[in-house]
Amino acid sequence: MKNIPVILLGCGGVGRHLLQHIVSCRSLHAKLGVRLRVVGVSDSKSLLLASDVFTRELDDTFLNEVSRVKLGGSSLKTLSSFVNECQVFANSEATRTVIDTATRLSKSTGLVVVDCSASSETMGVLNQAVDLGCCIVLANKKPLTAAMDDYDKLVAHPRRIRYESTVGAGLPVIASLNRILSSGDPIRCIVACLSGTLGYVMSEVEGGKPFSQVVKDAKSLGYTEPDPRDDLSGMDVARKALILSRLLGRRVNLDSLKIESLYPEEMGPNMMSLEDFLSSGLLLLDNDIQERVQKAALDGKVLRYVCVIEGSRTEVGLRELPKDSPLGRLRGSNNILAIYSRCYNEQPLVIEGAGAGNDTTAAGVLADILDIQDLFA
Amino acid sequence: MKNIPVILLGCGGVGRHLLQHIVSCRSLHAKLGVRLRVVGVSDSKSLLLASDVFTRELDDTFLNEVSRVKLGGSSLKTLSSFVNECQVFANSEATRTVIDTATRLSKSTGLVVVDCSASSETMGVLNQAVDLGCCIVLANKKPLTAAMDDYDKLVAHPRRIRYESTVGAGLPVIASLNRILSSGDPIRCIVACLSGTLGYVMSEVEGGKPFSQVVKDAKSLGYTEPDPRDDLSGMDVARKALILSRLLGRRVNLDSLKIESLYPEEMGPNMMSLEDFLSSGLLLLDNDIQERVQKAALDGKVLRYVCVIEGSRTEVGLRELPKDSPLGRLRGSNNILAIYSRCYNEQPLVIEGAGAGNDTTAAGVLADILDIQDLFA
Repeated sequence: MKNIPVILLGCGGVGRHLLQHIVSCRSLHAKLGVRLRVVGVSDSKSLLLASDVFTRELDDTFLNEVSRVKLGGSSLKTLSSFVNECQVFANSEATRTVIDTATRLSKSTGLVVVDCSASSETMGVLNQAVDLGCCIVLANKKPLTAAMDDYDKLVAHPRRIRYESTVGAGLPVIASLNRILSSGDPIRCIVACLSGTLGYVMSEVEGGKPFSQVVKDAKSLGYTEPDPRDDLSGMDVARKALILSRLLGRRVNLDSLKIESLYPEEMGPNMMSLEDFLSSGLLLLDNDIQERVQKAALDGKVLRYVCVIEGSRTEVGLRELPKDSPLGRLRGSNNILAIYSRCYNEQPLVIEGAGAGNDTTAAGVLADILDIQDLFA
Repeated sequence: MKNIPVILLGCGGVGRHLLQHIVSCRSLHAKLGVRLRVVGVSDSKSLLLASDVFTRELDDTFLNEVSRVKLGGSSLKTLSSFVNECQVFANSEATRTVIDTATRLSKSTGLVVVDCSASSETMGVLNQAVDLGCCIVLANKKPLTAAMDDYDKLVAHPRRIRYESTVGAGLPVIASLNRILSSGDPIRCIVACLSGTLGYVMSEVEGGKPFSQVVKDAKSLGYTEPDPRDDLSGMDVARKALILSRLLGRRVNLDSLKIESLYPEEMGPNMMSLEDFLSSGLLLLDNDIQERVQKAALDGKVLRYVCVIEGSRTEVGLRELPKDSPLGRLRGSNNILAIYSRCYNEQPLVIEGAGAGNDTTAAGVLADILDIQDLFA
């Protein structure tokens, strides 16, 4: 049986589901000859570490307790009474402690550092873990969209890093692109809808509903971030576009991408309150969107918020697409990706499915961990 | 630099393209830290082996020569004059020689045995290679659709075998299913169109053309096997369905699948000549197909030749599908696969694209080889 030690950074929605998946997959993974040994978990306030990372682990009862506590919105600190099970470190000591653990484990058993946080502050610990020879699995987009130098360090050993769940949740997007790349089939173009929220919004306005109403509906259905401008700005799609673009070898940064926001600068979070945006700002956007939808419809086209990577261009924004194309047919909140290459020339390779949700995102992370099992003894 | 020794069985269309891809990917693979060292190639008549498999390889000039000779339809034997480059073995000695080589290399550098033949006779050498600790990469469906016992031996070490190109050519079907399986997301159902030929035929008859005419058109366009009954029998789709079904853990054999043939037994190759089938037999099938297409159309549905894996059922045959479903929308010769699981529950995960062609099939094989690189020192 192959033992793979894991430290999990961030046990909110995705991280919590990952712990549940790890526990419920015990017998399945045993059949595959693998055992995931969770030796540490952290949230923004604390790090819990097995009392001896070589011989002990956070057992399944304890991991279930972590899931329960985090589901209830509490901090990991509340588990510090399980003093026999683990050591508890405050956030200020967490980074040093993870690095210490990585230093010790990397030389013997190896270690996977899994980042399911949404923080930009894990970069330091991740880059050091890479240097120490650890494997890295990310659901967190921030480290991959940082400055080029930091990115280069992070992916310096491509076989030791996986980040499927940063784009399209569990959809096999990065894995498929890596296969195409390693077979020497040059990727000419990627066109994709990578936001379930904007996918829902754009397919609803197509039916004639006012943009403002659709955004408010999406918000009340829980499809948007608490402030829908976080979706409408296109920044989330831009981060995913940047991750794909860099995977294809482009030397680009977030601020060099062309990003279309669906609201003007003067309605931004720094200039207008959320209440004002929802009650009056949004209404001012209805006409423009409606006109664009109608103009597209005159040519038999539909508006989609897409990411386009072609040549040196990486862009995200609204595009008119043929109603009868794979992206034009997209309805609801699915993600879709069309890849054009030598092998997929006139007809693209298309991958489509749910591109959000804690369950599927965590499943993607778990598949990533299993995918690097050959690097462990 | 990681050196991965490769022996290629079968250098017809796919194998020949694989050799070309290997040569043209040299600098790309060097950047990935990998060098594929082709130490042997075989066709149905002979095996060419590097003069010393530890220190020598079949160099790129020689591999290009192999591609050229096979493109011209000649046998590898014609290369036996390159006596400084390699040893030449007749077919009768090939199996023993491959096993000898596998025995010697597996203990030191490891070896990938790649089967791009269409033969059912490679099973013996593959199973022995597995026993010896070699890795196996297959484009050949036959070994995976043999008796259950043989299959079990072949996949006894799941990390050491890849066979992406047996289903949907280079489409990332098996890789994606493996990801879903390893993440513990239970696959409830797979519905797929896995024959470009039958996809073309069924979308053309939908437009009102007679079945017989469409089949003859497909034959003259080179979309079918020389005897179109090889496609119309559904056996090729059935083999792919069996491979997927076994991947999902079903203990099934080819003869336990429900397979619908598009021609009756009395028109089979043993009962009717190809000429008679094309000139008269086919015409007798037109009415039935036309009636079924029309009946489906009355319900807003279309006929598709599909593979369905659900519960203990694995079936291939014609099904009525909603016109507006992913499979119903399929046109032309693309392959498409819809996967339903816990994570992809109401909306399936869909993978679509070209599912045939030597170039893309060989690209899938090459991606498979690169995917097992971590098993080599």
